[in-house]
Amino acid sequence: MNGFACKPPESVKADDFTFRGLNKPGDTNNTAGFKATLVTVNQIPGLNTQGVSMVRLDFAPGGVNAPHIHPRASELLIVMEGTLEVGFVTTLPETKLITKVLQAGEAFVFPQALTHYQRNVGKEAAVGIAALDSQNPGTQPVVAAVLGSCPKIPVEVVAKALQADDSVATQLQSKFK
Amino acid sequence: MNGFACKPPESVKADDFTFRGLNKPGDTNNTAGFKATLVTVNQIPGLNTQGVSMVRLDFAPGGVNAPHIHPRASELLIVMEGTLEVGFVTTLPETKLITKVLQAGEAFVFPQALTHYQRNVGKEAAVGIAALDSQNPGTQPVVAAVLGSCPKIPVEVVAKALQADDSVATQLQSKFK
Amino acid sequence: MNGFACKPPESVKADDFTFRGLNKPGDTNNTAGFKATLVTVNQIPGLNTQGVSMVRLDFAPGGVNAPHIHPRASELLIVMEGTLEVGFVTTLPETKLITKVLQAGEAFVFPQALTHYQRNVGKEAAVGIAALDSQNPGTQPVVAAVLGSCPKIPVEVVAKALQADDSVATQLQSKFK
Amino acid sequence: MNGFACKPPESVKADDFTFRGLNKPGDTNNTAGFKATLVTVNQIPGLNTQGVSMVRLDFAPGGVNAPHIHPRASELLIVMEGTLEVGFVTTLPETKLITKVLQAGEAFVFPQALTHYQRNVGKEAAVGIAALDSQNPGTQPVVAAVLGSCPKIPVEVVAKALQADDSVATQLQSKFK
Amino acid sequence: MNGFACKPPESVKADDFTFRGLNKPGDTNNTAGFKATLVTVNQIPGLNTQGVSMVRLDFAPGGVNAPHIHPRASELLIVMEGTLEVGFVTTLPETKLITKVLQAGEAFVFPQALTHYQRNVGKEAAVGIAALDSQNPGTQPVVAAVLGSCPKIPVEVVAKALQADDSVATQLQSKFK
Amino acid sequence: MNGFACKPPESVKADDFTFRGLNKPGDTNNTAGFKATLVTVNQIPGLNTQGVSMVRLDFAPGGVNAPHIHPRASELLIVMEGTLEVGFVTTLPETKLITKVLQAGEAFVFPQALTHYQRNVGKEAAVGIAALDSQNPGTQPVVAAVLGSCPKIPVEVVAKALQADDSVATQLQSKFK
Repeated sequence: MNGFACKPPESVKADDFTFRGLNKPGDTNNTAGFKATLVTVNQIPGLNTQGVSMVRLDFAPGGVNAPHIHPRASELLIVMEGTLEVGFVTTLPETKLITKVLQAGEAFVFPQALTHYQRNVGKEAAVGIAALDSQNPGTQPVVAAVLGSCPKIPVEVVAKALQADDSVATQLQSKFK
Repeated sequence: MNGFACKPPESVKADDFTFRGLNKPGDTNNTAGFKATLVTVNQIPGLNTQGVSMVRLDFAPGGVNAPHIHPRASELLIVMEGTLEVGFVTTLPETKLITKVLQAGEAFVFPQALTHYQRNVGKEAAVGIAALDSQNPGTQPVVAAVLGSCPKIPVEVVAKALQADDSVATQLQSKFK
Repeated sequence: MNGFACKPPESVKADDFTFRGLNKPGDTNNTAGFKATLVTVNQIPGLNTQGVSMVRLDFAPGGVNAPHIHPRASELLIVMEGTLEVGFVTTLPETKLITKVLQAGEAFVFPQALTHYQRNVGKEAAVGIAALDSQNPGTQPVVAAVLGSCPKIPVEVVAKALQADDSVATQLQSKFK
Repeated sequence: MNGFACKPPESVKADDFTFRGLNKPGDTNNTAGFKATLVTVNQIPGLNTQGVSMVRLDFAPGGVNAPHIHPRASELLIVMEGTLEVGFVTTLPETKLITKVLQAGEAFVFPQALTHYQRNVGKEAAVGIAALDSQNPGTQPVVAAVLGSCPKIPVEVVAKALQADDSVATQLQSKFK
Repeated sequence: MNGFACKPPESVKADDFTFRGLNKPGDTNNTAGFKATLVTVNQIPGLNTQGVSMVRLDFAPGGVNAPHIHPRASELLIVMEGTLEVGFVTTLPETKLITKVLQAGEAFVFPQALTHYQRNVGKEAAVGIAALDSQNPGTQPVVAAVLGSCPKIPVEVVAKALQADDSVATQLQSKFK
Repeated sequence: MNGFACKPPESVKADDFTFRGLNKPGDTNNTAGFKATLVTVNQIPGLNTQGVSMVRLDFAPGGVNAPHIHPRASELLIVMEGTLEVGFVTTLPETKLITKVLQAGEAFVFPQALTHYQRNVGKEAAVGIAALDSQNPGTQPVVAAVLGSCPKIPVEVVAKALQADDSVATQLQSKFK
């Protein structure tokens, strides 16, 4: 993960810079109705130190890419097919939702490490392609991080965050294995 | 926000580099039992371009700094008084909670933009001092971002993130003004 | 061009983060048989400081995106439709061509500021979407830079670069207005 | 020192992010009446690539943290107890001393790699906590660097810097072992 | 190539920071009438992570440093002896040549990764010293990259870039071994 | 000081990238026998954001560039004429002097913000050309910063740093106006 020079220049070959596998839709036959297919330094060794990665996002109708952050990247999304509602939330003290409905051919930017989501609000499958300014951006779905980490975050902490009783927090946590 | 040179060097004075107001405990008489007092470029103009800020964290017994992220910073925390339980969650696919109970004089690091929390698990007030590697780190409490943004994130999106019914999501959202 | 904060957070709106216009193919009815449609900070003000941009590349059959560099970015390309031959050249002393033929769904990385090209080697139109790790990457077609700048680079310099006579250089330069 | 990924994510544990030992005052029973206790990547492996570190500064009455630089960091200091006089010197051509007397709860910033000092001007012990924007900031006390390096800087160089005779320089150097 | 710390501080010695061999003119007895002598991290291990390198440029009368880029650096050139014509080309849509004739003692900057050249337009040998803001800037002569890579860029691509027939492209390519 | 784009690309001209005035030796007829002539963003507006600057160093026989730091840069020096003794001091806990005598044509690197000096140990004038990896590196002569700032650093602080009596510190300070 540290430097293009870890492979001697004379032995570099085209396959170090190539990735196959975005040609078919991601499988959205799951609860979220959503699938992300990544192209990061884990898929292309030659991306190391280049500071960029991409992701293909497939959505069934009604499918949701739940609120999440990329701790090391900003994201620029282009809708390729269908209609996506997108949004991100600003930091304190505003906590504003900046949201938009995008048709195919429209783009939207999610600033560095802010909580954001996408949802297919059309009647057909939707596809997005996004760029991120890190070869290793990382992803953290924030609700799953709070409710479903392993081990669990103590219920008292979760309850305070929810402004709810411990029993509510416990019940919500129990849905995450 | 762009460059130390926005003020001519000859007119720079000590007050541009000084902040007063961390001498008394933050007021923790609130629901969370917690108060953060910031020292960022908003408080000290001379911090501009210097890439560092600090925060004083005061906790009543049982007080919680709810799970949150700093989109533009890593954080290093020192417990000054009392006992804090701290933790952060790693990115996909792990989503592990890395957690520790810290006594006064102990330190812990929360990596760049990962969801983390602190809780006073002692019987006395607790105080922490933290360093962040940005003069403008930003803070986003992730549960409040998902449930309490303005306008609200659509209930269907929140429900999918919670793996719960829309009615649960609506009820949870209603607690945030 | 200097900082997200140039617009006060409270007046930020969704349109600052949105771009329309990638929904139809770029017009490839030109000599190169190629058209690039950019999504940079010039198109989306909210991209400022976010370090990322994208571009849609349309190719007629046989169309060529001539050898060029992006002085401030690496590039990651996904072929959306058709078949593209792509390649980049390494630095001295190697000057190797790293090349590949990509089908739809395949990706390739062009390292920071190295000369690279793409060509549609299929019988149908081809479309690519690329990510760059700068909100303002810049583009310089290197042959046009050497032969067609305004004013022209002196013919003696061009001839030496071509390892050819001045008359050859003059003739080549004359094709660029 | 190169990258968070040097340890596989699945084997990361809380101790990699924890440091113990700031709970008792540094021993100031020395000539300077001062002790620095560091929390850098040398103490917390998990700080690697996170770009932040901290230091606890203990001062006996009259104790001095002699003029020094951190070659790779800016510093933000909070006085926790007592009264500290602090100052830094600007670059050429100004060479101004920007100085302030700070009480407990007050903060001050020392810009990137500029010569700065702190002194306890109160009658009690003083304690400061400082943040630095590097996991490995380094420290160089500038007078000791000029007079007490090993081997010594030639006396003629030191004399010119002091605008003094060689004999003065020699005598000053002799105090540093 | 990753970090100053790869050598333990206690074993660092002066030779790690020293380079010999700029004392005599580079041999300009070649077709270009030009020779570059580099001082990068390849010559001085201690340059690693320091972000700077230098190069000595020797020109016979009429000698040319053909149009080239440094993918990872900006360049600042000082003419030490003789008279150099220098120039760089801006990015699209301008593609302007910014050019100047420099006498000994004059300096010029070539921005990050833009195509640039130098030529000795005096009657004597000329010498330049340049600084680059990377310890490993890389060099790519753009005409040789397009016409002389190994393997060759397909002639159809080169012809389109030249706005010329394939036969012209083939002939130009044939001059590069 | 913030961004190449502050001048519209279409109005950029060659003079924005040019500096005249290194053609004659700096005047070394002073106490130090030394003169630095800078080429930074203050001299060349087009250096802005390019991250590089240069300096010409002229030394009379015996002339000294007193120990100093550049807070925002590493430095790479080439000796053009004469013989220079150079050295830098490492950080705590080593405080080693890394030193070398350089002849014309030899180069040496001074790492980021470490105290360093140069001295002409030959019988003729000496000339050096140095590169720095910032367009605005800044310079701080550390002895003058400690003894000669305006206002003065308190004598007690200086005395502790010198490990000497206050009277010694006072006397040394008095030589700096």
